[in-house]
Order: sequence, then C-alpha cells, then structure tokens
Amino acid sequence: MIPHIVYDADVLRLLDQRRIPDAVEYVELRDWQSVAQAIAAMVVRGAPAIGISGAYGVALAARAAANGPHFLDEVSRAAHGLASARPTAVNLSWAVTRLLREALDLVDAEQPPHAIAAALERSARAIHEDDIESCKRIGDAGAALIPAGATVLTHCNTGGLATGGYGTALGVIRSAHRDGKIARVLVGETRPQLQGARLTVWELLGDGIPHTLITDSMAASFMRRGAVSAVVVGADRIARNGDVANKIGTYGLAVLASAHRVPFIVAAPLSSFDPARETGDSIPIEQRDPAEVTHVAGVRVAPAEAVAANPAFDVTPASLVTAIATDRGLLRPPLDRAISGVLDEAPVSSAT
Amino acid sequence: MIPHIVYDADVLRLLDQRRIPDAVEYVELRDWQSVAQAIAAMVVRGAPAIGISGAYGVALAARAAANGPHFLDEVSRAAHGLASARPTAVNLSWAVTRLLREALDLVDAEQPPHAIAAALERSARAIHEDDIESCKRIGDAGAALIPAGATVLTHCNTGGLATGGYGTALGVIRSAHRDGKIARVLVGETRPQLQGARLTVWELLGDGIPHTLITDSMAASFMRRGAVSAVVVGADRIARNGDVANKIGTYGLAVLASAHRVPFIVAAPLSSFDPARETGDSIPIEQRDPAEVTHVAGVRVAPAEAVAANPAFDVTPASLVTAIATDRGLLRPPLDRAISGVLDEAPVSSAT
Repeated sequence: MIPHIVYDADVLRLLDQRRIPDAVEYVELRDWQSVAQAIAAMVVRGAPAIGISGAYGVALAARAAANGPHFLDEVSRAAHGLASARPTAVNLSWAVTRLLREALDLVDAEQPPHAIAAALERSARAIHEDDIESCKRIGDAGAALIPAGATVLTHCNTGGLATGGYGTALGVIRSAHRDGKIARVLVGETRPQLQGARLTVWELLGDGIPHTLITDSMAASFMRRGAVSAVVVGADRIARNGDVANKIGTYGLAVLASAHRVPFIVAAPLSSFDPARETGDSIPIEQRDPAEVTHVAGVRVAPAEAVAANPAFDVTPASLVTAIATDRGLLRPPLDRAISGVLDEAPVSSAT
Repeated sequence: MIPHIVYDADVLRLLDQRRIPDAVEYVELRDWQSVAQAIAAMVVRGAPAIGISGAYGVALAARAAANGPHFLDEVSRAAHGLASARPTAVNLSWAVTRLLREALDLVDAEQPPHAIAAALERSARAIHEDDIESCKRIGDAGAALIPAGATVLTHCNTGGLATGGYGTALGVIRSAHRDGKIARVLVGETRPQLQGARLTVWELLGDGIPHTLITDSMAASFMRRGAVSAVVVGADRIARNGDVANKIGTYGLAVLASAHRVPFIVAAPLSSFDPARETGDSIPIEQRDPAEVTHVAGVRVAPAEAVAANPAFDVTPASLVTAIATDRGLLRPPLDRAISGVLDEAPVSSAT
C-alpha cells in the first residue's frame, strides 16, 4: 500500500481519504492546528491512524515552539487541541498524552527545547512504526479464529488506511488470506461516510482478496443464509469490561451475529483500550453533522427540510464479543479478567 | 398528497418517484410495455402501487387490442409481461391476474372486446380506489397497537406513494398521528435506493409529522437506548405461515426488535398475501443491478472494479412478527391460523 501518513521534519503529509477511490491526493499540514482540523474533517480516520497523526501534530508543534519563549505552554496547548479533535477513539488522546508526558519529563530533566522536540519526533515515529508491527501481531492472533474457506463480514475501514499500515480487522483478514483461509470478504458499505465501499474495497482490490460489497442493511440476510463465517471489526475504544465503541452499525452487527451464532471478533491494539473506563456506558459518542446523512458524496438525497441524526459510533456490550484480537494475543471471555491481565501485567506506556 | 397514479383513457401518468424530492415530474405511458418498463425501473414502486399500475397496464393493453384480431392473445401477453416486471411483490401478479381472469370470463360470456376493455378499465379503477380504503382500514387497525407518545421506526416507503394513497405502514403512522400518539418517526434511509430518505421524509414533511432520518445501521443503537416504541413496516408478499418478504433490511430490523423487546408490526392489505405459498422460503427474491450499491444518486462511490450484491428483498420469519395489520383487522400469532382464517373465510377475489 502507498504510505498515507508521511512526516518530514516540518510538514505532515496525509493522504486525503475523503477523495479515495477517485483521487490519490495528499494534504500538507505545517502546524498542529491544521492537523487537528484534518483529523476532525476525516482527511485521516481510523483510531490508530488518528493517534499517529496526532503524535506527529505534537512533534510539529514542539519543533515550531522550540525557538519561542513558551515551549511547554505551546506543546501543552497543541496536545489538548489535538486530543479533542475527535472524542470517541482513545488512541488519539493516548498518543498525544504519551508525547506530552515525555515533554514534561524532559523539561523536568532540564533538556533544551530543541532536544525535546527531536525526542518527540522520534517518539511519534516510534508510535507509527510500532503500530504497523502491532497490526501484524493482531492480524496473526485473529487469523487463528478464521476457519478455512471463510466468508468474513467486516464493517467500515480498519485497514492500512486506518492504521500505520496492514490494519486491525483488515489485518486479521490479510493474515487469514495469507494463510489461504479467505474465500470472500463481505464489505458493509458503512453509511454515512461509506468507508467500506470507498476504502476497504480499494484496499482489498489492491491485495487481490475477493470481496462483495453490500449495503449495511443486507448483513442480516446474508447471515440468515449461513453465508457469513465470522464478523471481524475494529474498535475506537474498549472499556475494561470489554464493551467496544466502534463505527455506528457495529452494535447491530454484533446482535445479528449473536442471533445467528456467528463469531464476532474485535481487532484492536492495546492503545485502543481505555484503562480508566470501567464500562462502555460513559464513552463519549461523537455526534457529527447531519448533512453526512442527508447527503451522499456531496449530493443531497433527502428533502432540504429533512431532520437527521448522525451518531458516529455505537457501543457493543462485551457479552456479544466472541474474542478480541490484540497485539498481545487473543483475549477471550471473561473479557474483564483478560483485559485486566494485559493492561495491568504489561501496561502500555501511557493513557493513565 | 398529489395523485401519483393517474389513468386517463389511453394514457397512464406516473409520478416519477426516482426524481422525488428534487422534482415532481410525471412519465406518460401509452402501452403496456412502457408500463412494465416503468415498474422494473422503479418509476413507481411499493407493492400495492405496482399492483395498481399493473392493472392499468392491462387496461391500456385491452383498449389497444380491442380493434385488432387477437384481443385475448394481446391481453394475455400484456398480463404475463406486466406480472413479470418485478418478481417479489405478489400484488402485481394478484392485480394483473384478476384482470386477466375477468377478461377470460367475459370472452367466455361472448362479450365484445370493447365492452371487455371498458370492464377491465373499471376494474383497474376499482382496485385503485379499494386500495385507498384498504389502507385506511390497515392504518386504523395498526394504530391500535401504537402507544401514546410513541417513537416509531419505519423502513423504506410504504406511504401514499407506495399504494393508491395513505399507505400501509405509513398509514398506521398516519392514523396513530391523527390519534395524537406519535412523538416522532425514525426513518431508516433504506439503502440502496434511499426510499426512506427521499420519499418517506417527503411524505412526513407534507403531513407535518415529526421525523428523524437515520442510516439503516443506526437502528440498533436507537433501540438499545430505549428510543424505539415500535417498528412498523410494509410487505411485498406474505406467506400462509406469516413469513414476510419485504424491502432488504427488514429482516435485520425484525431480529433487532426481537432482541430489544420492541413490537414488530407488519402492515399490508390482503392482496399482499400469497395463498399459494406455505412459507417464505420459496418467495422469489429480486436481484437488482449492483450499480445501485456502487453508486448513490448517480455518483459512483466505490472503486470502478468493485463487486457488489443487490438483493432487493429479504424474508422475515413469522416468529419475529408481533402482529400484521390488514384491511380485515389485526392478525396475531399464531399467524398461520389467523391468516388461514381471513384468506379462507373471506377470500379476496383472486391470486389463486
């Protein structure tokens, strides 16, 4: 896959995912405010990918502030501004907080701003590189659950575009395809923004993995016919009890999978777990512009006076999750215990 | 509501529902082939509405053939051609078969072609007028199940546009609104053709009934929050055991409603029941052009090489149906017995 997050000293280049598959275009971002804006506007999306982009945004801010009188203030302001660009995925605040804490530690250690800026840049690159490795471990862990000849249903885009590369749920599919197990991927188009139709189909075509695109409303019918071996989705935030916030439509798929006895597999790195959240009930759900529902690809489809709702995420209770494939292996029910195991025994370096 | 099926001797004018809400335009059809084409292309859609349109198509054919040498052949050819314009809704073959049988009876009775053509025209008009009355009875029957202050979720368009007027599921909502019971209608947009977003919102705005448009994938999340009092949908064909074929996405809503203990109400006239079909398993499911999935409002949203599926309907098993509101009153489980009761005791004049 072509690189979609490219950091080069004083500029962050992001592949504009809103234009895929029609055009491959990059936006160039030279300050953290533009990065925050690009994240909010979904130039880049996908929980791990916005975490990586947020980290580079902090690095940009640190480099710009290194010559000024208010280094730490500027870095803090950037961190808070970036972290609040989108509320639901925890990876963004995880990555940004990790860099902010590093900056605070280095200021305490009396490092000069230029050295701190260089260190933050190295850390942002490390988050990016680690994410790619992390996805491969997630993919391999999840692939073990996919039977031979599987038709796997997925939702939204959780691929290379949503991560540093390779993908989470799509990483599971890629690993299972490498192992010769994938007969076909059913791709839910994922209204309102159609990440499934636009991005996931694009990635699958690139990898030569057979796919069939369906509207979100068709999933139940395919399950009833026995045509779905497993559902594999990503996560924007996972609570300590295993409740999963993910793209709107995920919860419905989980209920349908349960009703049809289809395994429901979540794929996510440990940076998507929120150790401070006991259950999913209090996870903030982003409400986006209703115009995303009344319009498709810029064309208004409903009457001009239409009133629409646009919650961007929903929460799937842990009871509907068969397993979570992570970069630390497979987590199985009881998920609360399994999650505490990985979070407490081998804490990831942050988010607390 | 403005009339959307207007028959005037040698021309059938259909409101082009593909253009709503952007334009109010009629197509003029002067032969049965054009009517069949308009039905296949969904200029007119909705099970009762295509039944009415099909009947007028037979009337047009009879009028044209009345001066020729092959009256009955022509009428039969029109009836079969119209009946096969769309396979899933039974109302179309019901209406067309009813007129064909009448033509056969009148030929047997040695009536002249002009008199038969005139009789068929009267019958088509009667089917149209009966449907409007029928919808009002369906609406009143179903409204009895709607609690005060209800938020009702509906799917597709089952309103005046889908019927002779008033609507089936939307008729239930209209009657409940008249009775002061409707707080809000949640309208599923109904991909791929967006009949909910385009047509149902348009009708609700016209009637001043509060609505919120959602993507189909949001329904589960609204149910989980307790925000849905009842789901009300129409039907394209109902088997003797109560299995319901309806717009794709209906089955998923039925599973979700059951999982959340939300009543799932089907609204349909007796002409939507198929007395020859014991269960829903053998109901033919129309597979439409995959371009309806890869494109929205004429704009391609998926990669050009995308492979898509487009089943236009699904089948909801009777076990998930709380009640069926019909023009002969409410049918409740056990539905097989209730359906046999109305079909056998008070047979509708056809479809057998």
